[in-house]
Amino acid sequence: MNISIIGIGLLGGSFALAVREKYPKARFIGVDASQVHGQLALAKGIIDEAMPLEQAVPISDLVVLATPVNTILTLLPGILNTLPEQATVLDLGSTKESICTLADAHPKRRQFVAAHPMAGTENSGPGAAFRELLPGKNLIICDREKSAPDSLKLVEALFLDIGMKLFYMTPQEHDLHLAYVSHLSHISAFALGLTVLEKEKDEQAIFDMASTGFSSTVRLAKSSPQMWAPIFDQNRENVSQALADYIEFLQRFKTLIDDRDVSNSLDFMARANVIRRVLEGIEKR
Amino acid sequence: MNISIIGIGLLGGSFALAVREKYPKARFIGVDASQVHGQLALAKGIIDEAMPLEQAVPISDLVVLATPVNTILTLLPGILNTLPEQATVLDLGSTKESICTLADAHPKRRQFVAAHPMAGTENSGPGAAFRELLPGKNLIICDREKSAPDSLKLVEALFLDIGMKLFYMTPQEHDLHLAYVSHLSHISAFALGLTVLEKEKDEQAIFDMASTGFSSTVRLAKSSPQMWAPIFDQNRENVSQALADYIEFLQRFKTLIDDRDVSNSLDFMARANVIRRVLEGIEKR
Repeated sequence: MNISIIGIGLLGGSFALAVREKYPKARFIGVDASQVHGQLALAKGIIDEAMPLEQAVPISDLVVLATPVNTILTLLPGILNTLPEQATVLDLGSTKESICTLADAHPKRRQFVAAHPMAGTENSGPGAAFRELLPGKNLIICDREKSAPDSLKLVEALFLDIGMKLFYMTPQEHDLHLAYVSHLSHISAFALGLTVLEKEKDEQAIFDMASTGFSSTVRLAKSSPQMWAPIFDQNRENVSQALADYIEFLQRFKTLIDDRDVSNSLDFMARANVIRRVLEGIEKR
Repeated sequence: MNISIIGIGLLGGSFALAVREKYPKARFIGVDASQVHGQLALAKGIIDEAMPLEQAVPISDLVVLATPVNTILTLLPGILNTLPEQATVLDLGSTKESICTLADAHPKRRQFVAAHPMAGTENSGPGAAFRELLPGKNLIICDREKSAPDSLKLVEALFLDIGMKLFYMTPQEHDLHLAYVSHLSHISAFALGLTVLEKEKDEQAIFDMASTGFSSTVRLAKSSPQMWAPIFDQNRENVSQALADYIEFLQRFKTLIDDRDVSNSLDFMARANVIRRVLEGIEKR
């Protein structure tokens, strides 16, 4: 079985590492705009060979699109065009609506599976890839009924085998929920990083003063702009609404502080404490 | 040497555990509004005995105020009143200006040392205390010249011996910097937690969908309202300004997203990426 990884970064690379451990007879082909990424992925044992996209697709049983989501939009139609009849193309993009809308317009839609592994770190590139990234995490599949049964089965089998838990929803549900539980977290971290950097132009003051509270909240501000700008753009309606909601809570809290309304301030935080139960649910997984 | 810990929570408890390991002949007296906290602290070996404040202070060599900062304001004058001549009272509060202003008005100011250990977790109470909390972290001492040399020496010796690194600044500098590098992080997490909870009234959706990105950003939303409400209130001017700055960055980013200005969106995030270097500095410590 030939599996082509398009975009051998954190996600594509980690997927390959997890799958190849279970499927040692599969052949992994890497396609990446960056020659350096290809070299590193070869040397790290993520892929068995590197080749250009147009050579890889026609010989693939499974094509995995693990590039930024704008690149997915650019590449997907062409990939479907040249994809062999029994083969499947899978995307791992962090947005789903734009990608699914595009795929729906293609005559070979049934050979496409729309997925999103809920996993990542703030690092990028094949150097960041590691086998343990995906196992134990959740995979979301959207519009599964629009994929051919065999294509869906292939994808489900692989991801279940590497230890992921599968969830199904529409692309609209996916993008709405992710705006709140993921995209907003990243934006809040970027903005927090900027706010602190702007104020503490002397970075030494930050070094001296920050405790791990700061580190964890702002960790996501290390994330790749090239990955996230297309995500926020494709999911702009939901992200914009999530931001509006978030800003409103912040303004409300600011008002409580300005008014010295300690009692309601306590309530505000006590309600947020409910997240403890939620997080314990997540951490138990 | 008798050391009284007033408020045997995460901080007071962890301080006692770290110090008693190095100073096995010291006697630790616990004072806490909660009888349960006293019982737990005794059973856990954090303190050697529990007693009311008015009994503890007159027999102490060092009194450590590790309560919420509003309680510190309430208790400090009375403690200074009854503190023996050669003894020292130390506070560990997360704000410094209000506390120092109050202390400055007391005739026995020189027996007071204003400090703040930059360390914590989102947990509270003696059950949360652990010996390794403070070692390796930073301690800030404010207005050191207003403390008697022996009082300062006692505090510095203890904290250095348990492995903390000492920094000195004015209470004003402390409160300003902390508004940005600490207090704002906590507020952003509280608000993020509320925004997500409000939207995802079905908590299961959050369980299913969140990845560790969400967990780390919102972890601080588990923090104690009783601890944080007084901090935000005492430091309200700086905190309000920090919030205003943060909200502005968020609104700016929202505008870039609404305008589909991907190029400036990339810039915005690239500037925030500078925090990577800052965080690596923190993590190396």
